[in-house]
Amino acid sequence: VVHRVILSRAPHARIVDLTHGIPPQDVRAGALALWRAVPYLAPCVVMAVVDPGVGTGRRAVAIETDTDSPPLLLLGPDNGLLVPAANAAGGIARVVELEHPDCRPRSDSPPAIGATFAGRDVFAPAAGQLCNGVDIESLGSIVDPAGLEGGPIELVSPGGPSVVAEVLWVDRFGNAQLNVEHFQAPGPGGEKDYLVVEVPGADPIGARRVTAYAELGEGELGLVLDSSGLLSLCVFRGRAADLLGIRPGDRVALRATSTAPVPFGHGPGQAHP
Amino acid sequence: VVHRVILSRAPHARIVDLTHGIPPQDVRAGALALWRAVPYLAPCVVMAVVDPGVGTGRRAVAIETDTDSPPLLLLGPDNGLLVPAANAAGGIARVVELEHPDCRPRSDSPPAIGATFAGRDVFAPAAGQLCNGVDIESLGSIVDPAGLEGGPIELVSPGGPSVVAEVLWVDRFGNAQLNVEHFQAPGPGGEKDYLVVEVPGADPIGARRVTAYAELGEGELGLVLDSSGLLSLCVFRGRAADLLGIRPGDRVALRATSTAPVPFGHGPGQAHP
Amino acid sequence: VVHRVILSRAPHARIVDLTHGIPPQDVRAGALALWRAVPYLAPCVVMAVVDPGVGTGRRAVAIETDTDSPPLLLLGPDNGLLVPAANAAGGIARVVELEHPDCRPRSDSPPAIGATFAGRDVFAPAAGQLCNGVDIESLGSIVDPAGLEGGPIELVSPGGPSVVAEVLWVDRFGNAQLNVEHFQAPGPGGEKDYLVVEVPGADPIGARRVTAYAELGEGELGLVLDSSGLLSLCVFRGRAADLLGIRPGDRVALRATSTAPVPFGHGPGQAHP
Repeated sequence: VVHRVILSRAPHARIVDLTHGIPPQDVRAGALALWRAVPYLAPCVVMAVVDPGVGTGRRAVAIETDTDSPPLLLLGPDNGLLVPAANAAGGIARVVELEHPDCRPRSDSPPAIGATFAGRDVFAPAAGQLCNGVDIESLGSIVDPAGLEGGPIELVSPGGPSVVAEVLWVDRFGNAQLNVEHFQAPGPGGEKDYLVVEVPGADPIGARRVTAYAELGEGELGLVLDSSGLLSLCVFRGRAADLLGIRPGDRVALRATSTAPVPFGHGPGQAHP
Repeated sequence: VVHRVILSRAPHARIVDLTHGIPPQDVRAGALALWRAVPYLAPCVVMAVVDPGVGTGRRAVAIETDTDSPPLLLLGPDNGLLVPAANAAGGIARVVELEHPDCRPRSDSPPAIGATFAGRDVFAPAAGQLCNGVDIESLGSIVDPAGLEGGPIELVSPGGPSVVAEVLWVDRFGNAQLNVEHFQAPGPGGEKDYLVVEVPGADPIGARRVTAYAELGEGELGLVLDSSGLLSLCVFRGRAADLLGIRPGDRVALRATSTAPVPFGHGPGQAHP
Repeated sequence: VVHRVILSRAPHARIVDLTHGIPPQDVRAGALALWRAVPYLAPCVVMAVVDPGVGTGRRAVAIETDTDSPPLLLLGPDNGLLVPAANAAGGIARVVELEHPDCRPRSDSPPAIGATFAGRDVFAPAAGQLCNGVDIESLGSIVDPAGLEGGPIELVSPGGPSVVAEVLWVDRFGNAQLNVEHFQAPGPGGEKDYLVVEVPGADPIGARRVTAYAELGEGELGLVLDSSGLLSLCVFRGRAADLLGIRPGDRVALRATSTAPVPFGHGPGQAHP
């Protein structure tokens, strides 16, 4: 229905669904999914709805990113969903709070038949307007970007041989994306590609830094640079997150070692830190 | 493949997937999903396939809704899937039974390589034809609308302090949509927003009438007017249908009370009717 | 994101998602899904990614099918994913190994921010190029079709009263598609529509050859010619694959019998071969 409302305003719009896989009301997961996609989106209008605070005082906003980059306009609730993506897309130039009547369905649209469904009744009509080239100020009044909820995603780039990382995402293959941009552990003797992975409450596990999933042996835990430019824990033909018992938001410690790891399913002594 | 067949006939068509989430062969769930969407669809051609009777004598039909409303054309099996939506869209003007050869793939299409898949081989080509502006009578012979399977969705609008409702739908958040348009329980002393919810075989549970999910406390059962204009049972950050043990088609009794409810997970005496 | 990259190269492209339901890294399931769809796709560009060998030496290829048929161009990894579909679409005319710089994002695209995601960084830009009408040789060098991984799907067409079949696919209704094109078991006395189905490790089960699911009684096992032109095991309002305990790749023996079957759930003696 949201697609239909957008097309009723902007029949020429090309609509791409980025994801329908965000867990209910998980604003952080939605913000991260949008942040991963944003380098590939501009120029476009992004509409995002993960909105547990709908019906309360939370604001609905439109964000225009910095005009030195290709233009990107983001619509959604002011709950931290949009700001990481806006920052990654060049920074925030202007913000409006959606309030004007023309954010609502056209006069020839059916009257809303129930409570406001923000995606259908506010953001989709506004997205259609923006696809037609209207300025964001026609949708509401300018507000201070500093007042927006949320901030950039915190990434770490360790200089030393260890780091405490956070799991950002578990993809459909069970790979666990970490908030770590690189990790060149200066281990002794050229064995810098061996690591120990420590999950609270579990035995340390050995892993190996590789450049492709398929370099790993069956059941071997690996650390690869993924297509978002972040390190990801993976097991070839296995689900790393399930085997490690980790979920988004969990902490994981990585440290360099000179000892080769033992694959999953090869008995005790899996890791020899 | 159905999209591709439509586009091979009507390259200009804009195709929107309303849902792929209907449980296998659940005609009623499909009819309700279409009925909820229909206020936002016209003008358009709707193709719907939930078709457990395919291959038997069930008819394939095209329905044109009343021309005083924006035009809506519905294609699908005559098994009750289309009629609730057609009624909600202004009523039925004309019906044809699909029978003419030009409902089938074009002569330059590959011959059907197996049994007829009605979506791919009958409804998609017919939808492409209708998108090109042909009259529904070019697809078959006019039949009597009174002979169609199905009828309008039965909604209740209680005038008194109690109602027996039916669960129409459980959404992905676990909210349970009821077939109740409003419920202004005339409780004593201004405490009209408290209700008791009775599910057969379980203890009565207290609930509160609110205008947004987020007004509820953690674990509190609420009744909100949803975006379809129907009352919905919900639990903030919880799955109401799971907590109540209800599914589509189940009966639920609501009655007014003057006693405030106790949230889920707060011990015995959850409801004090 | 892949859609967005294609549209950034070929804004006019109409993109249809054939499926997002392939189990992780299941090349065979992907090849079969594409093979089932291919009679309905041409003319078009097909991009397919089920790619467990990404990052290793596996090649990325573009295949042009034989020009006597409507043109079909297939892009994907050279791991057996594309060849069954290419054969079904008229055979392979030319193959190139993707290697040229213009397979990569445009110069005004963001630099890849991490490891290569072949779908996003190689196949999607190449698909956009092909949608714009470039010849496949602009994407790389011609290679020998005989060197491609994979071959046609092996189907059987038994002439006699029995066959050993392979389960190709279990659909969302639980129907099990077999690699059998037809089965006209010449049973005695005109009772040729009765069969015995044998799954290794389980008792034989009786089944009936029917032309539509709905001809079956509740719980009765049937064999129908499906919309791909292959025989499929089904249970009306039940999940045949679950009831038989079979999965894709399993072997199933079918043989003719003169004895009528007994439906599931009707006690011992279910089959009387």
